Amino acid sequence: MNSLFANRIREIRTGKIREKLDMPPDVGLISFASSLPAKELFPVKDIEEATKEAFTRWQDTALQYSQSEGILPLREKIADRTNTKFNTKYDYDNICITTGSQQGTDIIGKLFLNEGDVVLYEPPMQLSVLMAFFNYGVNFVEIAADEQGMLIEDVEAALRMEKRVKVIYICPDFMRPSGKSWSIERRKAFIETVSEFDVMVVEDVIFSDFRFEGEPLPAVASFDNKGQVILLGSFSRIFCPGVRMGWLGTNRELIEHVRKIKRSCDLNSSTLDQYVLDSYLEKYDIEVHVQKLVELYKERRDLLDSAMRENFPKAASFTKPEGGLYSWVRVEGVNAKKLLEKCLEQQVAFVPGDSFFSRGGGDEMLRLSITSLPVERIRAGIKRIAKGMSALGLHPPTRVTINPQSYLELDEDAQKKVLLS
Amino acid sequence: MNSLFANRIREIRTGKIREKLDMPPDVGLISFASSLPAKELFPVKDIEEATKEAFTRWQDTALQYSQSEGILPLREKIADRTNTKFNTKYDYDNICITTGSQQGTDIIGKLFLNEGDVVLYEPPMQLSVLMAFFNYGVNFVEIAADEQGMLIEDVEAALRMEKRVKVIYICPDFMRPSGKSWSIERRKAFIETVSEFDVMVVEDVIFSDFRFEGEPLPAVASFDNKGQVILLGSFSRIFCPGVRMGWLGTNRELIEHVRKIKRSCDLNSSTLDQYVLDSYLEKYDIEVHVQKLVELYKERRDLLDSAMRENFPKAASFTKPEGGLYSWVRVEGVNAKKLLEKCLEQQVAFVPGDSFFSRGGGDEMLRLSITSLPVERIRAGIKRIAKGMSALGLHPPTRVTINPQSYLELDEDAQKKVLLS
Repeated sequence: MNSLFANRIREIRTGKIREKLDMPPDVGLISFASSLPAKELFPVKDIEEATKEAFTRWQDTALQYSQSEGILPLREKIADRTNTKFNTKYDYDNICITTGSQQGTDIIGKLFLNEGDVVLYEPPMQLSVLMAFFNYGVNFVEIAADEQGMLIEDVEAALRMEKRVKVIYICPDFMRPSGKSWSIERRKAFIETVSEFDVMVVEDVIFSDFRFEGEPLPAVASFDNKGQVILLGSFSRIFCPGVRMGWLGTNRELIEHVRKIKRSCDLNSSTLDQYVLDSYLEKYDIEVHVQKLVELYKERRDLLDSAMRENFPKAASFTKPEGGLYSWVRVEGVNAKKLLEKCLEQQVAFVPGDSFFSRGGGDEMLRLSITSLPVERIRAGIKRIAKGMSALGLHPPTRVTINPQSYLELDEDAQKKVLLS
Repeated sequence: MNSLFANRIREIRTGKIREKLDMPPDVGLISFASSLPAKELFPVKDIEEATKEAFTRWQDTALQYSQSEGILPLREKIADRTNTKFNTKYDYDNICITTGSQQGTDIIGKLFLNEGDVVLYEPPMQLSVLMAFFNYGVNFVEIAADEQGMLIEDVEAALRMEKRVKVIYICPDFMRPSGKSWSIERRKAFIETVSEFDVMVVEDVIFSDFRFEGEPLPAVASFDNKGQVILLGSFSRIFCPGVRMGWLGTNRELIEHVRKIKRSCDLNSSTLDQYVLDSYLEKYDIEVHVQKLVELYKERRDLLDSAMRENFPKAASFTKPEGGLYSWVRVEGVNAKKLLEKCLEQQVAFVPGDSFFSRGGGDEMLRLSITSLPVERIRAGIKRIAKGMSALGLHPPTRVTINPQSYLELDEDAQKKVLLS
């Protein structure tokens, strides 16, 4: 039967470790690997209330097929929120509702990508997001970046050299897993350069709401005068993923094509889910809920950071992301997969960094999720990872209990030695 | 931007008439075109109850991501029901839950079809079902059929001649729109022949529950010893389409591949929908609801049939389907699209038959849906279609009010004339 599979099937990365790690963890295991949002933070009671209201108000309409592009009131609300958040100028007919943002990616792939076409992206990148593109048999080309974002001259060079670039996938807010964001200047320079080429830009804003510090920046889409950018968003993280609501924003003409593809994918996303989300947005202020999430995740980020500072050996360096839901750790001279083996013996897990590069790299990197663990397990988990590091010969700085009196009696060199030990 | 579209996009049939006709009709229009299930028959109160129960029992789990292949209890229930209905021998791991059966088709397309591959099918066929295959750039080859089903020798000839046949799409129960079913002998002969070739069979059982007369027949899948058949089912018609639950049944090895494709499409179907359907199936006997639907649709079919007998001209012949949700009408010597124009002037609609053939044909055919209209509108609608036919010069038989006394006084030839007039 496998002989009958389409060519594209060879391209699919099975990503077994990733899939396994994404599953809800065993009771004993402390998993920093899972990128599932924390269930205990879902607004369950409010969603239940909103569902009741959806039935009361919409009755059998909430159970019928809907327009493929989604129900109008929800598209309006999404357009409004996107304009407020990202400085776009959308109307409801710039929006297509999707079955999670994963389907948004799939629709873009189906609409644009032939076998052998090229997609540009900046590593490290959560490749599961790009998995849908793999299925269309494309080639990936990595674009280098500095602290401001993608290097514009490299983007331009790639667009000139590679005649088959169809899509540039960007994530200017809190890249996954690095947590990096693009500067506003880089955003403007990027769209200015790209506007000279026939290429689509997919701008992923799935994590943009999770900003712990600093001011939000306008989306690249807000500087787009040519209709090149497709915004890809989701309610999975700020609401819940079980009500599977993502969305895609772009120019009206393109939405018409998107709608047709959407129709061939699943006719429409769950009508019930659409009315549940719409009723929730009508009845509650989702920004209040998002703010609550941001505060909780910030607390977890801070705890994770201080636990790593206390317990990790010098060879480990790590980000304290100003937003997003991951910490990105480097352990110099250590293979992350080997470390994972040792860590699993200690009943703790993370995602090894090579998963985030399509052409090799990231061998010394680990991705730690800050979302999925309650505070009391974070410190315990970091201690276990530190034990795993110890098993590979990387010991945390010895905690010398310094007797202040005897310390002061030492000469300067000896004092230094104690402090650096 | 259109220059950037993938090649496959050219293949998409926009199907504007179909899409327009599928939309909920204007107030004034009586539409036999819409294939939307009748909203008034959704078990709204029971679904609302089941939703409450899903929240009470599953809470945040009903709002989290689920396994890509769907939640276990629902897969078990679907396997059990399928075994009872179709004589298969499935377990939960033979089932993947999909976002409607449309997604089932899309997943099969993505898994098997390269550009230029061939799909066999028996016309007339609801091509929107095959729309997902168009997107993979395939060619369609029509297989002739008699009253028993596809002609086995033609299937075999096509498989020998066309080296690139990957999929045979069959609908042995109540084909759409013809309402025809395959005999049990033909089902067996089909799988026996097909088992000699490397080809997949997609068996559509979406309408199988709607049998008005006769005994249910086992699915072709139940005679499949080689794991060639993929069953494609849906709860859209027997439950409601807004809770978007379809399913796909096949051998375990293939389900593993289906799961990966499913993951790239939308990670998983709405978790809330899955728990709502599961709770409904737990709490209520869906077969009781299905029986109610069958009785209602049978009543509508009978009324439609008698209204057509009374009002249609001789040039019109039509099926009285023993199952399924359409009547298939032929109006000899009349172009159905022209007739539709006349009928739209009368505020009545149907789907012209050429939509159901990929290579021409069906010009004199009309599809009338028996599901979407309440009884009181069916007779009025048929009268309007008859007026449309009149406008094209096809008049219904004159209703001669025969005075029995004067009739008996006529000679035999004259009597005959009156009766045939």
